[in-house]
Amino acid sequence: MSLEKFFNPHSVAVLGVSRNPEKIGSVIFKNIIDSGYKGKVFAVNPNEEFVMGYKAYSSVLAIKDKIDLAVISVPSELVIKVVEECGKKKIKNVIMVTAGFKEVGDIKLEERLLKTIQKNKIKLIGPNCLGVINNYNGLDTLFIPIYRLKRPDKGNISFVTQSGAFGSTVLDLISAENYRLSKFISYGNGLNVDESDVLNYLSKDKETGIVVMYVEGVKDGKKFFKALMDIKKPVLILKGGKFEKSSKSTLSHTGSLAGINEVYEGIFKQTNAVITESMQDIFDFLKLFEKNIKIKGGRIQIITNGGGHGVISSDAVIENGFKLAELSRTSKAILKKELPSIATVSNPLDVVGDADDSRYELAIETCLKDRGNDVLLVNILYQTPKLTKNLINIINKLNNKSSKPIVVVSTGANFTEELRRGLEDKDIPCFQFPGNAVRAMKAVYDYYKND
Amino acid sequence: MSLEKFFNPHSVAVLGVSRNPEKIGSVIFKNIIDSGYKGKVFAVNPNEEFVMGYKAYSSVLAIKDKIDLAVISVPSELVIKVVEECGKKKIKNVIMVTAGFKEVGDIKLEERLLKTIQKNKIKLIGPNCLGVINNYNGLDTLFIPIYRLKRPDKGNISFVTQSGAFGSTVLDLISAENYRLSKFISYGNGLNVDESDVLNYLSKDKETGIVVMYVEGVKDGKKFFKALMDIKKPVLILKGGKFEKSSKSTLSHTGSLAGINEVYEGIFKQTNAVITESMQDIFDFLKLFEKNIKIKGGRIQIITNGGGHGVISSDAVIENGFKLAELSRTSKAILKKELPSIATVSNPLDVVGDADDSRYELAIETCLKDRGNDVLLVNILYQTPKLTKNLINIINKLNNKSSKPIVVVSTGANFTEELRRGLEDKDIPCFQFPGNAVRAMKAVYDYYKND
Repeated sequence: MSLEKFFNPHSVAVLGVSRNPEKIGSVIFKNIIDSGYKGKVFAVNPNEEFVMGYKAYSSVLAIKDKIDLAVISVPSELVIKVVEECGKKKIKNVIMVTAGFKEVGDIKLEERLLKTIQKNKIKLIGPNCLGVINNYNGLDTLFIPIYRLKRPDKGNISFVTQSGAFGSTVLDLISAENYRLSKFISYGNGLNVDESDVLNYLSKDKETGIVVMYVEGVKDGKKFFKALMDIKKPVLILKGGKFEKSSKSTLSHTGSLAGINEVYEGIFKQTNAVITESMQDIFDFLKLFEKNIKIKGGRIQIITNGGGHGVISSDAVIENGFKLAELSRTSKAILKKELPSIATVSNPLDVVGDADDSRYELAIETCLKDRGNDVLLVNILYQTPKLTKNLINIINKLNNKSSKPIVVVSTGANFTEELRRGLEDKDIPCFQFPGNAVRAMKAVYDYYKND
Repeated sequence: MSLEKFFNPHSVAVLGVSRNPEKIGSVIFKNIIDSGYKGKVFAVNPNEEFVMGYKAYSSVLAIKDKIDLAVISVPSELVIKVVEECGKKKIKNVIMVTAGFKEVGDIKLEERLLKTIQKNKIKLIGPNCLGVINNYNGLDTLFIPIYRLKRPDKGNISFVTQSGAFGSTVLDLISAENYRLSKFISYGNGLNVDESDVLNYLSKDKETGIVVMYVEGVKDGKKFFKALMDIKKPVLILKGGKFEKSSKSTLSHTGSLAGINEVYEGIFKQTNAVITESMQDIFDFLKLFEKNIKIKGGRIQIITNGGGHGVISSDAVIENGFKLAELSRTSKAILKKELPSIATVSNPLDVVGDADDSRYELAIETCLKDRGNDVLLVNILYQTPKLTKNLINIINKLNNKSSKPIVVVSTGANFTEELRRGLEDKDIPCFQFPGNAVRAMKAVYDYYKND
C-alpha cells in the first residue's frame, strides 16, 4: 500500500470549508494555504459560492482537475455521501478528520464507511484523526491554528500517533524545544491505513531518519511485528494503556483494545523499537537519536566543574549499567601538570568552580584522546563566573575533530538556557539534568550495540 | 546551637573584598549591598583604603562596631590568621567560602582551622561553601553574580546543600520556574555546623514550610536521624553517592564518605524525609508540597480533553499504586445529560477536543462534589480551539470552594506555558506531563497518609 499521495499530492480538496474561519474545515484549508504548499487546493461547500475569499465547489464532482487527496471534515451523518462522491471522482486517498464512529460506540457507521471505501478502492487515514503534515512541502491538514500550535522546523523525525491530542502536544513541544520534523501522521481509528502501513512508508522515506510512535492498540500484531523488523531506523515507541484497567479507556478513545503490556514489550525487544516509558523519555531520547549519536562502548568519562553534579552523574552512570572509565596514565600526567592542585584528576574529572574555557578545552581534549573511555559526559555549570559563550565554539571544534561522542549537561535557567541552545544548534546534545542524559545514553547504546 | 545570627545578623564583615569587582570577596560584598540587606556591612582588605567606593578596614579589629557575622573569602594560607582576629573581635559566626581543605587532601589545614574555631568558640559554616541567603532580609553571601543566577521570590522553601554548585543550579531553576524561597544554605565541608544543625534551625524557623536537602555523606548519623524525626515539616532529600563506586567521588568533593544507600533509605523512611531520586523529582514534588496540597485518599478521577492523555494518565495512576475512582450514579446522570454524546462519562472523563471552558467547569464541579474520589487530575490541552484563558479563573473559583485538591496537567509550549503560569500564580499546581504529576501526587500522599 503506497501512502505517497497522502504526503505528496499534486492537488487537494478540503470538504467542509465554511464561511466561518474558526470551523475545523476552514482552519484546515487555511493551514494548507498558509504553510506554503505548492499544489492546487480546492474548497468544497455545497451551500456557498465563496469561502474566505476562495471559490467554493458544491462537491468534488464539480472540480475539473484531477484530485490526489481529499480531506474530509463534514459532520458524521454526511460522510458516506461525500465518500461516495470521492469514489466517483476517482480520488484514491482520503483523510477523514470527522469523529463519531467506533470510538463513541457507533460501530454500524464505521462498518458502512469501511464498505464504502472498500467498494471505491479508497485508502483512508482516520476517521477521528488530525491527518498529516509533510514538513518538506508545506502540506498541513491539522485543524489546529498555528497561533496555538507552532509548527517545527524541517528535519528527520517523523511522528506517528493514534491519538490526535497526544500528537498535537508533542508537536507543540517538538517545535518549542527546537527538534526538527519530517512527517507527522495522526491516524485515529486506523480504518484501512494502520500503524504498520505508516511504518512501512516511513521505512522507505528518505526524509525520515527516526520514527516516534504513540500506540494504544495494534490492529494486526503480525503485520506490526514485521513492519518493526523491516524498518532499519530507530522507532521510539510509547505504549498507552499498559494495564487492564487503564486500557479500558482506550476502547472508548480510538476504539481499539490495548494488548497486554508484557506481550508488547516482548515484541518490541526483538525489533528496532526503542521502548519509552513516558513523554519525558521521548524528548530525552530524541536529543541523541536525532543527532545520530552512537555510543559504542559502556565506559563513560565524566567531566564537571561542580562536585555535586559529578556525584549525581556517577550515580546515574552506575544505575544505568554503564562503567566509570579510568583515565590513562598519560592523561593523568597531562591533567595533573596543567590543572590547578584543587582539581580532581579522576572520574569524575573535576575542573572545579573557577574553571575557565581553556581548562574545559584541556580536559575535553585529553579525555577525547584517551582510549580508556567510549563517551564523555560533560557537566558545565554556567553559574560560575569565568565561563564564556566561546566555550560553545571550543566544544564544537573538539567535537568535529573526534569520532567519540560528547554529551553535555548544563543545569540552569536563562543564561544557561542560551548556552544550551548554542550547543544544540551545533548538534551537540545538551541536557538539563544528568539523570535524563544518562538514561538517553543507555537507550542509544542498547539500540546500536548489536550493529 | 543557634544559627540565628547567620541568617539575621545586625552587622556583617566581608573579609577579602578586592578593588577588582570580579573577585569572589567583591561579588559577595556587592550582592549583600545590592540585595537590600538593612544591617551594616563592612569591607576588609589589609592593602587598600577604599574598595569599589567603600571604606576598607585593614582587619576586623579595625572596625569599631560589634560584628555579628564574618564572611571569609581570603586565600587558604591566610584563613588561620583572620579567624584568630575574628576570635579577638568576639565574632561568633563565620561563613568560610575559601576552599582548599580536606576536599583537596589538606587534612592538616582543616584540623588547624577546627582547633582555631573551637578555641575561639566560633560557629563556622564551611569551608568550601557558598554560604547563605535569607530571602526575608536580603542577606546574600553567594559569590555568584546576579546576572548569572537570578534570585527567587520570597516563599516557604528552604534549601540545604552540601554541594555549592548543586545549590547554585537548583537556585537558578527555582527562580526561573517561579518557586519561592525562604533560606538557602550551602554548608560545604560542614566543619562544626552540619546538616543536622541546619535542620534543627529550620525546624523552628517560621518562614520555612518545607526543606529541600542535597546530601552526600552525613557526619553524625544519630544526630541526623534525630533531627529528621524532630522536624515536623516535609524534608525532600536527594542523596548523592548512592553506590560504592560513585561515592568515591564524594570523598574528593566535600571530603566526606557517602554511606551505603540502603542504610540511608531505611533511615529516611522512618522520618519526615521524602526521598527523591533525581533533580527532576525535586522540582515535581515541590510543586505540590510548596502549595501545601494534601491528598488524603488514593482514588483519582481523571478529566481530559484528549483521549491519549487520559490513557497515559491512567497508566501513571496504576503504576503509582493509586486507584481509578468511579463516578457516582448522580455524577454520571448529570454528565450524560449535559455533555455531548461523543464525550466519555467514565474514568478518564473525556470532555473531548471541542470542549470549551464551560464544559470543563461542569466536569470539574461535578467531580469535586462526587464523594467517590479523593483528588482530581485534570488534563487540559490548550492546543484545541475553544478553550480560553478564562478557564484559569473558573478553576480557581472551583478550587477555592472545595477542600479536595485539583492537580492540573497541561502539555505544550508557548500558549500553554502562559496558562500553566496563570494557574500556578493562583497556587493551583500545573505539570507539563501526566507521569511527573502522578509521581509527585504519590510522594505527597505517602507523606501525609499517617497524619
